[in-house]
Amino acid sequence: MASSSHMYSRLLLTGAAGGLGRVLRPRLKARCDVLRVSDLGDLGTAHAGEEIMPVPLQDRPAVFKLLEGVDAVVHLGGISTEQPFDDIVQANIIGAYNLYEAARTHGTRRIVFASSNHVTGFYRQDEVVDATMPVRPDGYYGLSKAFGENLARFYFDRYGIETVCLRIGSSFAEPKDRRMLATWMSFDDLERLVISSLNSPVVGYSVIYGMSDNHHVWWDNTPAKHIGYRPLDSSEPFRAAVEAKQLTLDLNDPAVIYQGGGFVKAGPF
Amino acid sequence: MASSSHMYSRLLLTGAAGGLGRVLRPRLKARCDVLRVSDLGDLGTAHAGEEIMPVPLQDRPAVFKLLEGVDAVVHLGGISTEQPFDDIVQANIIGAYNLYEAARTHGTRRIVFASSNHVTGFYRQDEVVDATMPVRPDGYYGLSKAFGENLARFYFDRYGIETVCLRIGSSFAEPKDRRMLATWMSFDDLERLVISSLNSPVVGYSVIYGMSDNHHVWWDNTPAKHIGYRPLDSSEPFRAAVEAKQLTLDLNDPAVIYQGGGFVKAGPF
Amino acid sequence: MASSSHMYSRLLLTGAAGGLGRVLRPRLKARCDVLRVSDLGDLGTAHAGEEIMPVPLQDRPAVFKLLEGVDAVVHLGGISTEQPFDDIVQANIIGAYNLYEAARTHGTRRIVFASSNHVTGFYRQDEVVDATMPVRPDGYYGLSKAFGENLARFYFDRYGIETVCLRIGSSFAEPKDRRMLATWMSFDDLERLVISSLNSPVVGYSVIYGMSDNHHVWWDNTPAKHIGYRPLDSSEPFRAAVEAKQLTLDLNDPAVIYQGGGFVKAGPF
Amino acid sequence: MASSSHMYSRLLLTGAAGGLGRVLRPRLKARCDVLRVSDLGDLGTAHAGEEIMPVPLQDRPAVFKLLEGVDAVVHLGGISTEQPFDDIVQANIIGAYNLYEAARTHGTRRIVFASSNHVTGFYRQDEVVDATMPVRPDGYYGLSKAFGENLARFYFDRYGIETVCLRIGSSFAEPKDRRMLATWMSFDDLERLVISSLNSPVVGYSVIYGMSDNHHVWWDNTPAKHIGYRPLDSSEPFRAAVEAKQLTLDLNDPAVIYQGGGFVKAGPF
Amino acid sequence: MASSSHMYSRLLLTGAAGGLGRVLRPRLKARCDVLRVSDLGDLGTAHAGEEIMPVPLQDRPAVFKLLEGVDAVVHLGGISTEQPFDDIVQANIIGAYNLYEAARTHGTRRIVFASSNHVTGFYRQDEVVDATMPVRPDGYYGLSKAFGENLARFYFDRYGIETVCLRIGSSFAEPKDRRMLATWMSFDDLERLVISSLNSPVVGYSVIYGMSDNHHVWWDNTPAKHIGYRPLDSSEPFRAAVEAKQLTLDLNDPAVIYQGGGFVKAGPF
Amino acid sequence: MASSSHMYSRLLLTGAAGGLGRVLRPRLKARCDVLRVSDLGDLGTAHAGEEIMPVPLQDRPAVFKLLEGVDAVVHLGGISTEQPFDDIVQANIIGAYNLYEAARTHGTRRIVFASSNHVTGFYRQDEVVDATMPVRPDGYYGLSKAFGENLARFYFDRYGIETVCLRIGSSFAEPKDRRMLATWMSFDDLERLVISSLNSPVVGYSVIYGMSDNHHVWWDNTPAKHIGYRPLDSSEPFRAAVEAKQLTLDLNDPAVIYQGGGFVKAGPF
Repeated sequence: MASSSHMYSRLLLTGAAGGLGRVLRPRLKARCDVLRVSDLGDLGTAHAGEEIMPVPLQDRPAVFKLLEGVDAVVHLGGISTEQPFDDIVQANIIGAYNLYEAARTHGTRRIVFASSNHVTGFYRQDEVVDATMPVRPDGYYGLSKAFGENLARFYFDRYGIETVCLRIGSSFAEPKDRRMLATWMSFDDLERLVISSLNSPVVGYSVIYGMSDNHHVWWDNTPAKHIGYRPLDSSEPFRAAVEAKQLTLDLNDPAVIYQGGGFVKAGPF
Repeated sequence: MASSSHMYSRLLLTGAAGGLGRVLRPRLKARCDVLRVSDLGDLGTAHAGEEIMPVPLQDRPAVFKLLEGVDAVVHLGGISTEQPFDDIVQANIIGAYNLYEAARTHGTRRIVFASSNHVTGFYRQDEVVDATMPVRPDGYYGLSKAFGENLARFYFDRYGIETVCLRIGSSFAEPKDRRMLATWMSFDDLERLVISSLNSPVVGYSVIYGMSDNHHVWWDNTPAKHIGYRPLDSSEPFRAAVEAKQLTLDLNDPAVIYQGGGFVKAGPF
Repeated sequence: MASSSHMYSRLLLTGAAGGLGRVLRPRLKARCDVLRVSDLGDLGTAHAGEEIMPVPLQDRPAVFKLLEGVDAVVHLGGISTEQPFDDIVQANIIGAYNLYEAARTHGTRRIVFASSNHVTGFYRQDEVVDATMPVRPDGYYGLSKAFGENLARFYFDRYGIETVCLRIGSSFAEPKDRRMLATWMSFDDLERLVISSLNSPVVGYSVIYGMSDNHHVWWDNTPAKHIGYRPLDSSEPFRAAVEAKQLTLDLNDPAVIYQGGGFVKAGPF
Repeated sequence: MASSSHMYSRLLLTGAAGGLGRVLRPRLKARCDVLRVSDLGDLGTAHAGEEIMPVPLQDRPAVFKLLEGVDAVVHLGGISTEQPFDDIVQANIIGAYNLYEAARTHGTRRIVFASSNHVTGFYRQDEVVDATMPVRPDGYYGLSKAFGENLARFYFDRYGIETVCLRIGSSFAEPKDRRMLATWMSFDDLERLVISSLNSPVVGYSVIYGMSDNHHVWWDNTPAKHIGYRPLDSSEPFRAAVEAKQLTLDLNDPAVIYQGGGFVKAGPF
Repeated sequence: MASSSHMYSRLLLTGAAGGLGRVLRPRLKARCDVLRVSDLGDLGTAHAGEEIMPVPLQDRPAVFKLLEGVDAVVHLGGISTEQPFDDIVQANIIGAYNLYEAARTHGTRRIVFASSNHVTGFYRQDEVVDATMPVRPDGYYGLSKAFGENLARFYFDRYGIETVCLRIGSSFAEPKDRRMLATWMSFDDLERLVISSLNSPVVGYSVIYGMSDNHHVWWDNTPAKHIGYRPLDSSEPFRAAVEAKQLTLDLNDPAVIYQGGGFVKAGPF
Repeated sequence: MASSSHMYSRLLLTGAAGGLGRVLRPRLKARCDVLRVSDLGDLGTAHAGEEIMPVPLQDRPAVFKLLEGVDAVVHLGGISTEQPFDDIVQANIIGAYNLYEAARTHGTRRIVFASSNHVTGFYRQDEVVDATMPVRPDGYYGLSKAFGENLARFYFDRYGIETVCLRIGSSFAEPKDRRMLATWMSFDDLERLVISSLNSPVVGYSVIYGMSDNHHVWWDNTPAKHIGYRPLDSSEPFRAAVEAKQLTLDLNDPAVIYQGGGFVKAGPF
């Protein structure tokens, strides 16, 4: 438990060498005594208060060791794009199981799980979805994230381990196309979302979409108001430039029609 | 299709000589290469980039010609107050059919259809309504708008023509009575609503209530968040003056109880 | 009001020469002192207790006279297949208006309105629909029936005239194809539905799907349980024969996918 | 009725000597010609435009007299903490009945009833509740407030007396603990809520949760948007200090898990 | 606990001298070793296996004694018609509290609580209600039953005491008027309902409407399917006789329009 | 496609040597020209019109071959009890992927997928669940079935392969305990369910609970009425005997409280 002025003494950040992991690494460090970071990519050298533990998620004993002494986890690790099924099974399905089993064994209190909007990517862009509606995954990646969400639900119902699933939209430095005008989440808003997920008193099993305060959106976070996430950024300042690059869209293209964008027609591998 | 920096090359604005038509005419001109305007009222002379084509909506061949070469339509035309049924049938029912048939024939991509809050005018003022709830029209005008909405639904389901139905509240220079504190939409917000309806990437068949960011409201636009409409005005600055004129209300008066206001007791003609 | 042992003294049956009208004519006669029948088709000669008044529904003065002295109406009249829009406007839209205005003028208590499953024909056959869900008409006929339903809603909200809208499936001597295994309603069940609609103490504005107790169905009548309709027949005894005639179906055919069947691809005229 | 520039000539404030009563007393005085105040606690001396009438709510004749000449009531009176059942029955159940009977007798137009979040206190802190969901009272106090809400529903359905039920969270000078980061309502927001409840044109029977614009919340006021309440304060500026005092929480403690906080384990008496 | 072949060793039946109590008394005796019966009316002499304990429900010590040694309670006691509020408070509100406190003290496992359709009596007869919808009591009696239901909810959430609330329609030897064609429950079906409520493995806090398998009904028991109640009787055989006595109804009469029937206009006392 | 009087020429039954597979094998044979059966258990010798192909589901090339020439699949194969995660991943997750990939490759028209009630096993026994509600798996087995359902959803949304997911309760010769009074499905009803799933004209992606016409149930199949499943058996005749064996239940035991029964406390392995 917290031995300092932080709510969590030791946090684990998986996927710390990825795009979002690099963003969150220094920001999470400010919220705990020790930040343990893990990834298969290059993690550089440990900064003050950091522990570096590179671990493949499918390596069960290593993952068990990774969770030792950890109060809470921000789990960005695993594959985050559409890839062949066999790879995704290893990293995202078996990997998620390993993580939750380790959390159960070590008594980890809470996991913030990077799920994805691709869990519901086969809804249309003219539909507004909330987290109580049935999933419609748009590929193997989305399927693996839906599996991870259900796993989290089970570990809460059975063992009381709390999880906030973040169905992240598109978190980049800026929105790149018209789809991202709806799905974009700034890095600062990503931080706000993760911190509110870590600090909210009671989360049980919760699911929230990760997006900035964009004007046109496809997701309604009313069922997750208890998380207290308030985005402060917006895709709106980027609208004119983005629309100018993409004046017209082909409404016969599934990547235009469905929320998942290009993912809905990736593969088959 | 767009041959310039605009999403739409040629837009058609019907009802261009009416109250809202005059407001939107210059603002839509700024969004397209050519704005075609139509009305039975006085349209003045054509400004640069304008085409004037006065057409009665019940005149089918004329309406077919009106749609020729048009990318998208903002359809304000027809009767917009409670009137005898026979007049409303001609302008709003047969007229709407003519418009959609013309759109089908010419391959028009999208229609922004001025529907009305009177489609749900028989809900009470202490109920909050959204666009998925059953309609409760408050008169022949409301019935004709409900017909237009259903027609649009059919032309999307059958032929893929996209429509955004705007259930417009009360769009005037300022709110005139206590009912309008809830229903008012400023002209600038009207423009925002129409532009977002035109520019949203995928709208399919969508329905959205048209109101400013008023404090007390009767309509919940959650199901239309994908449209991206964000009102910036509000009836609140007008509240004190409006309330001072109308301190008390007669709660036995249907025009006070129901959302449709005076419409609910107009006629029978 | 009833001057005898019947709930209604004089009933009006429109469309009495049509397929369902001929079925209901003798059965309704048994429920009232006088049965007034109307149609443009051949109505034969009046039986005891019958009044024959052939009236085109678009003839307003004639329709006003038709309703005189009538306690309740079973309104099957008008066009009941997909036809050119102009014909449907006359018979089903203007005709319905004439009927309700006449009912308002004469104080008719209740109308049983033959609506149609084609009001929601663009739902898929793997969806279960109830009467609170948004309409999805599958053609001009379906649009006109949706208009009639909304008209009935208005005349109840405004004037207190009660209506039961029957969204009739397929009422024939027997089911003819696999779609009708879901949509079929026997003539006896049709009678049960109409009688329960007439006799239920309070109906306000109600909507109910008309089908027999078929095994696979697309419609859920839970919101209309107060009508008290209990079908006693079923399409099941016809299943083997029907399936044998139509072993396979083309799932690329809209007429197979959507509830409206062939209507969804009729026209355009 | 209003004889001046105020919507209400004479307002009654019960519970005027309590924590919230003292806050509202001067603010309501500014909204009416005469403010009648009542409480069993010390009400001091009457200010200009005030009438002081100390009355025990269980004293029926006294309560009848208290309502005489009153246009509207802000009813804060009664017991507002968890207490033995017998006390609560007298003040909150019999007292509420006396108040509504008096309102019926005197033709009082509207009552703003201080209900409580404890009406739904047994929902979890990771659930988002709205006023259409079943109640889950967390004690005798919550039960008595649920009774008061139902009583108000009945007096509207039967006699047309309008009520706005305020399910007040925690209205104090500032939030004292992490639970109150969700439930806090500033005194200024309390005033806004009460005034909008009094001034909204049509309220019928409405229920609204009383909270400031806090970031993480458990209540969704969408069904009460017609009231027009817009909070301007927030618990957020107090977050850092509050969290520092209460870094960790015991998730095995019902007072942490459930929305009602400590109330859910008060008693039994 | 059960020491014999019965699920319950000792059952308590309150209100045993009332109309339904006399029906259930012998039938419940067959389901337990000992049946304790209570009422203020004449209970006659004890049959084999019976204990007679006449107790006023407002007498707390007596009620505590009444529950001693009891496994489960069928609580029909208290006032079951619309009466002055003060009487209802004593028997139905304070009485219900006494009963549940006694159950808590003695560890009673389950209570079958005779609630009433009057808890939702202000819904219209053309609405279909289920137990998750907000209550709309039609009088003091209905209010007291709503209180009892909420009390039961609280004692389950707080103390784990299970309750099945039976919102009983009209349980008489036969249906007496057209309203009862919808609300009637035969005595045999009443027994089935009570027994399934007692024997269902897990009931937590459940609410179910009590009616026979009538054709037209206003209540949907889908949310209570886990109780396993299957009515075998129906009001249908009585329809012809009942309708013949009441051919027409006055749709301006609240007792006709609303589900509560005559209760909605009883009083004020 | 069907070359005979059957809807399907060649059906594949996986898991044909298991408990339900042995039941369905002869019954499915009667519905097709050729029945291909697969399992790792003993399949005996091929009967007339049978093809035996024993294949481990995790063997991708073998599964691809297994689907060759198959019109439709009844997929009972894989692990059907709670087992260590690694085993379940192989048979139920990778195995399901192999099956759907093979179906995609070969153009298989429809899959009837044996899912399980354990997909929602962590709902309480006093809750009524339908297939649109969020899943709450009660173990690794339930998680794998939820994965299979989502996989089927994806293969329909992306590739148009139709699936009916059967959330089978407890299909045994007779119900063995009180839980099975709710969950039991007779073998004849199992056949009815599978046949209606195969023969229903349009199923898209559908989910249906598999149970007989038991009196107390936890599942509402309203959203799957289009499948046309009508159970004819019931657990009711077994009630007396089952209850006599299990008079009382421990309501502190998760296996009693939750729908999943013993599964909810199996493991951890």
